Amino acid sequence: MNGWSLVYEGFDPAQERLREALCTLGNGYFATRGAAPESTADGTHYPGTYIAGGYDRLPSVIGGRTLEHEDLVNAPNWLPLTFRVSGGPWFSLADVEVLSYRQELDLRRGVLVRDLRARDAAGRTTRVRSVRLVHMATPHLAALETSITPEDWSGPLEIRAALDGRVVNDLVARYRHLAGEHLVPVETAAVGSDGIFLKVRTRQSEIVIAQAARVRVFEGDRRVGETRPAHEEPRHVARDTVVPATAGTTVRIEKIVALYTSRDRAISECGLEARTAIARAGTFAELLHAHGLAWHHLWRTFDMELEVEADPVTPRDGSLATAALVRLHIFHLLQTVSPHTRDLDAGVPARGLHGEAYRGHVFWDEVFVFPFLNLRMPEITRALLLYRYRRLEEARVAARAAGYRGAMFPWQSGSNGREETDTQFFNPRSGRWMADHSHLQRHVGAAIAYNVWQYYEVTGDLEFLVDYGAEMLLDMARFWASAATYDPRHERYEIRGVMGPDEYHDRYPGADQPGLNNNAYTNLMAVWVLARAREVLEVLPATVCRRVCDRLAITDEELAEWDTISRRMRLVFHADGVLSQFEGYESLAEFDWEAYRRRYGHLYRLDFILEAEGDSTIHYKLSKQPDVLMLFYLFSADELRSLFERLGYPFDEQTIPRNINYYYARSAHDSSLSRVADSWVLARADRPASWDVFMEGLVTDVADIQGGTTPEGIHLGAMAGSVDVLQRCYTGIELRGDVLWLDPRLPAPLRRLRLFVRYRGQSLVLELEADALQVSAMHCVAPAIRVGVNGQVHEIAESESRRFVLK
Amino acid sequence: MNGWSLVYEGFDPAQERLREALCTLGNGYFATRGAAPESTADGTHYPGTYIAGGYDRLPSVIGGRTLEHEDLVNAPNWLPLTFRVSGGPWFSLADVEVLSYRQELDLRRGVLVRDLRARDAAGRTTRVRSVRLVHMATPHLAALETSITPEDWSGPLEIRAALDGRVVNDLVARYRHLAGEHLVPVETAAVGSDGIFLKVRTRQSEIVIAQAARVRVFEGDRRVGETRPAHEEPRHVARDTVVPATAGTTVRIEKIVALYTSRDRAISECGLEARTAIARAGTFAELLHAHGLAWHHLWRTFDMELEVEADPVTPRDGSLATAALVRLHIFHLLQTVSPHTRDLDAGVPARGLHGEAYRGHVFWDEVFVFPFLNLRMPEITRALLLYRYRRLEEARVAARAAGYRGAMFPWQSGSNGREETDTQFFNPRSGRWMADHSHLQRHVGAAIAYNVWQYYEVTGDLEFLVDYGAEMLLDMARFWASAATYDPRHERYEIRGVMGPDEYHDRYPGADQPGLNNNAYTNLMAVWVLARAREVLEVLPATVCRRVCDRLAITDEELAEWDTISRRMRLVFHADGVLSQFEGYESLAEFDWEAYRRRYGHLYRLDFILEAEGDSTIHYKLSKQPDVLMLFYLFSADELRSLFERLGYPFDEQTIPRNINYYYARSAHDSSLSRVADSWVLARADRPASWDVFMEGLVTDVADIQGGTTPEGIHLGAMAGSVDVLQRCYTGIELRGDVLWLDPRLPAPLRRLRLFVRYRGQSLVLELEADALQVSAMHCVAPAIRVGVNGQVHEIAESESRRFVLK
Repeated sequence: MNGWSLVYEGFDPAQERLREALCTLGNGYFATRGAAPESTADGTHYPGTYIAGGYDRLPSVIGGRTLEHEDLVNAPNWLPLTFRVSGGPWFSLADVEVLSYRQELDLRRGVLVRDLRARDAAGRTTRVRSVRLVHMATPHLAALETSITPEDWSGPLEIRAALDGRVVNDLVARYRHLAGEHLVPVETAAVGSDGIFLKVRTRQSEIVIAQAARVRVFEGDRRVGETRPAHEEPRHVARDTVVPATAGTTVRIEKIVALYTSRDRAISECGLEARTAIARAGTFAELLHAHGLAWHHLWRTFDMELEVEADPVTPRDGSLATAALVRLHIFHLLQTVSPHTRDLDAGVPARGLHGEAYRGHVFWDEVFVFPFLNLRMPEITRALLLYRYRRLEEARVAARAAGYRGAMFPWQSGSNGREETDTQFFNPRSGRWMADHSHLQRHVGAAIAYNVWQYYEVTGDLEFLVDYGAEMLLDMARFWASAATYDPRHERYEIRGVMGPDEYHDRYPGADQPGLNNNAYTNLMAVWVLARAREVLEVLPATVCRRVCDRLAITDEELAEWDTISRRMRLVFHADGVLSQFEGYESLAEFDWEAYRRRYGHLYRLDFILEAEGDSTIHYKLSKQPDVLMLFYLFSADELRSLFERLGYPFDEQTIPRNINYYYARSAHDSSLSRVADSWVLARADRPASWDVFMEGLVTDVADIQGGTTPEGIHLGAMAGSVDVLQRCYTGIELRGDVLWLDPRLPAPLRRLRLFVRYRGQSLVLELEADALQVSAMHCVAPAIRVGVNGQVHEIAESESRRFVLK
Repeated sequence: MNGWSLVYEGFDPAQERLREALCTLGNGYFATRGAAPESTADGTHYPGTYIAGGYDRLPSVIGGRTLEHEDLVNAPNWLPLTFRVSGGPWFSLADVEVLSYRQELDLRRGVLVRDLRARDAAGRTTRVRSVRLVHMATPHLAALETSITPEDWSGPLEIRAALDGRVVNDLVARYRHLAGEHLVPVETAAVGSDGIFLKVRTRQSEIVIAQAARVRVFEGDRRVGETRPAHEEPRHVARDTVVPATAGTTVRIEKIVALYTSRDRAISECGLEARTAIARAGTFAELLHAHGLAWHHLWRTFDMELEVEADPVTPRDGSLATAALVRLHIFHLLQTVSPHTRDLDAGVPARGLHGEAYRGHVFWDEVFVFPFLNLRMPEITRALLLYRYRRLEEARVAARAAGYRGAMFPWQSGSNGREETDTQFFNPRSGRWMADHSHLQRHVGAAIAYNVWQYYEVTGDLEFLVDYGAEMLLDMARFWASAATYDPRHERYEIRGVMGPDEYHDRYPGADQPGLNNNAYTNLMAVWVLARAREVLEVLPATVCRRVCDRLAITDEELAEWDTISRRMRLVFHADGVLSQFEGYESLAEFDWEAYRRRYGHLYRLDFILEAEGDSTIHYKLSKQPDVLMLFYLFSADELRSLFERLGYPFDEQTIPRNINYYYARSAHDSSLSRVADSWVLARADRPASWDVFMEGLVTDVADIQGGTTPEGIHLGAMAGSVDVLQRCYTGIELRGDVLWLDPRLPAPLRRLRLFVRYRGQSLVLELEADALQVSAMHCVAPAIRVGVNGQVHEIAESESRRFVLK
């Protein structure tokens, strides 16, 4: 691995699924896992093509109970391309001796290159090179160039290219009892002299997916070969080309594919568009050029340069290894959420576009994904907020159904925004189904509200608040007000019967009903949302304010109540002043971390371990992932202080380190997102530790540290979040009160960091060293911005550059 | 007609189609013409439901040549509701004696109310009142409340409610030989105890349309009646409810309908969503309340108050008649292009959402529709520009196909942005087909570029330019540069072989090929676009500028060439200095207007008249609609002066009046859009004449002054444009150089005008009188704006009010 690529030498079937997930190619519209197409010739595995927002709802059975599940759909596979010496068997990696194999994911250009040399049973040696892309400039196109060189044989070579709609969703072993076949046949056809066409429809959501492929064979620049009629079967179409191959001469095959769905905009009928697109598409070389150019400019906007002293991952490469990992994360992020998603109705699925785990559901990962993108290309984050806005009505229905008012976004959701959280999950250790109450994670909406405000802070886009944001914030505030109940004993408001982010606590020991009271994270986020809702009404133009309040029937009394609740929400503290994760946490038992680490060798899925022992995580002071700590991730010390003061609770210099120390020691760090928040909260207290945790987070997927979850799909939130630790945590970026605050604290191994952000229309280059910060505003027409460093606010105008010595 | 409604007394079958068109209800997502549902009981005519962007492409035959035509699809009709006295015939207006009939379109609340009293063949007298809405707050819903009162009879009353997908597009007589049947059956069903469900698919574009209806019958607040099983037939589902009716007691039927299509966002499957929506929908009263509130706030944003001295339309009503007509136009505009279109992929069809004429095609009407909306709710105009942006690639393909570079938007287009202009049209006077070369109206793209800039000027939304606008402007500039050829004789660039807006001149007399050279409007718009493209590069942040230029492969040489062309474009002038409409116009014959007016009594469709006489409009100095005059519509005197100076042509005080006088006298004013531009250009020269033409424009549709075109659909561009004469022309609003210029000149009959505009985030109230202007900025957070009055620029901050005495 150098600074711009991920390289695998040697073919390893055992590693193929992991490599597939890591070598995904995508453009925000669709994605293809990085499998070797030749390995699919035996029909055992198809990586499929994944479509943003192309979710399908199927009745499936989990734990004996029929559920309607929103599923990520594998669209037809566009990759299949194989060959044979006429009369022989189709080439398959399983049947040949692999002499050499090299796979390189080129992050800079966005292509996957595979070089292979193999000897078949008849002793013929053949070289195969394939270059593959999912187009970043023209989102409907993908292309595969395969070069076949017979080293020591000549004869007729048959090339078969196919489009295959028989794909199933079977990547996740534990989902295989669910319905995996989502596509029903619509049409197959030959197109012209060199094309094939496939049209299928998803079973429940009835999305029509059309693919067309143009296959041309060349020797040098000369078209060669004779194309046969298409083989058509339901959901499968293939076409063969026969060329006379000569030892030492390379035959090059260009397969250009177009994918359209019935959900696309600016189309007539998706099949017509796909066929038109392959007729219009340029050569592979032309497509590659435009694709590389698009990535070049994406990297200009999204790259990060860093200089690392010692690199613990692959020390032989110096600082390049860390840079490559950071870029791999950015690369995956941009493949799922890219400029092309601006005009889609697509959320942020937890496992990217192609990971089948969680069936494509949308959780709260956007709280980790959003900030990195928001400071780079806010047009993308605006689109993510619109995805939520379109589902606001569904969130209102959900709130009413649960006995609340306002809008309650679901913990897991899919296509139309309906709650999709499972009600049970299977413990493979005990063989028992365990109840899943995580729909009680009501806090997801607070994260959305937080993002609305972050978007407004970074852009100053008042029109967004006018049209969408204000309505979202107000209806979420109303939800929290309706969820809060007044407790006269404490003369405070409470939120009862919820879950915080920590999924190891869903109820009190011995309780019949799930739910916890006064989860600190939830209560404080509710306060923040209620306060922000009041603020948004100040910011809105008067007529808009009246319109929004009228539409939502918000009265002055209700606003006064929100204000009261936002000042009298209850937080629970331990006797020693530590913030309780939830009311009653203090009385739980301490967990014997060492004993379990000894007994099991790891602390992975303590919920399974304890349940199998007849115990439960709910009895202990332990957390799966950051819960109280999330507060220190989302809010700066200043902001936390003002929230505590608003509530009339004490806040001193020890509040933050005391809580961090307490909860960090009691965390199993058992979510891919843990390391993001962990390295973040440690950054101020223990910089070396923060850097170590950050580096652990960087290898989460590439090393598959959760032992098998990455092949089910990369962890998008963790990938984005770890990059955001560099971008916002080590720089100390905070967006508040129309000021871009910077408070850089580079951990020692990070000697230099250079990044690019957009703020209020200004393009800024930030260059950080241990004791200095340079802010350079590029030429533009945006007005001067306000930047806060060392506690002082400075105006920086376009084309101005300022250097600050850090105190 | 009072200030807020359009009332018809008495049932007049001959007027029904006109009333239908004028009494359309819509919400930007779908629209329903205002037909009497009872008149549809005989099956002869169904008004249908119209869907934004729901166009269907069908092969049809025009003039012996097979064309692929983009067609507006009539979605299933949701209105059908009829009744009968058990055993008798179904109620139909055709079979009863109508004792009284009153139809009122209530513009303020957005409802259509019909009151009817009729006596049937058996002598039974029945009162029927229906109230209908297409919901402005929840765009997927529509509702019909029908109250039936037997005056002098009792007995079992059978009520039949249906959803009917057997609608055809047959409104336009001359299109009836085209395929009119667009819907194929998918599903019909009963839903629960009181619902029906229909699903159809458009034939070519394969858009699935689902409708569900909930039908409940009441006496007072009490549910009554027995609902029968559904009648299901292909594309038709009906359900009957039987109630015992009593003389003098009103039976009230609520029919609540939901419509979803497969193109909608945030849905699972459209049928599921439609069924869910009717289950969740409130009562008719609740829907009416929320709908009225939405209209209330729309009117707060979009209304105009005017005080008119003498009202030539219906003098007995004083100034109210003019106000009502203005509101009718705004009402229709908001029914086609509304806040709900922001998230659709919908353009501005020439005849609104429901007019079948022009088959739903998109022309350049947005140049007239855009400005009114842009100064009120720029989020809507942004969406209109995105509609074009999504079709930019298609415009590039069109340019290449015609031998040009850059992007060439088509004169008529539909779903995927492909050119849809007819190649022939039928002259009913001669019985001959005439060639239609209007695809040579290349100027449509210049209007789009103009709107891009207007949007930027009104909002200062640099991000829009970054993401979309710059690319559009640059590729349109490239088109004009490629269309210009250098003529060494004049040492100037020329644009040859095009048509201007005037459709009466498509070629030179005696020419084999269509096309004219150096159309003044086209050449000057090209100059404006080329100059603006250079300016946008100055405005873009440096990295974005590089990205866009890289992607489009724009070189410095090319930019230099654009600059040269924009300074050396040729305009042709007559010997006396009048700008020639096109090169050679001066040598055409003068037309004997008086002789033709005497001979035919009108000057309507002079092209048909002359062709039938064996002559042609191309021989004469006449125009169908403004061509040169469009320049004075789009550009202020200052802007024209600077364009002329840029080109090195003389421009003096007489340039504008001389050209206006010359061309106004030579115009047949034979487009619905003529009066907009005419009243505009006359405003400075001859204010009384301007007001008269403006008033003519106001009655274009309500009086169907083109003699039969309005029943085929209202003229949306003319409606919006006439309102914009009030908004921008009489106020003298001009958006230029970050200044909101105001130069009010009220024509005498208009004593006072009060309107509301948004500019750079500020909400402004403008109050105009003959000699004074008041500008009041409402409270907001936007920075101070710059307002130019009497040639001086003033800063106006939020909450500030300034009064100017006009010089």
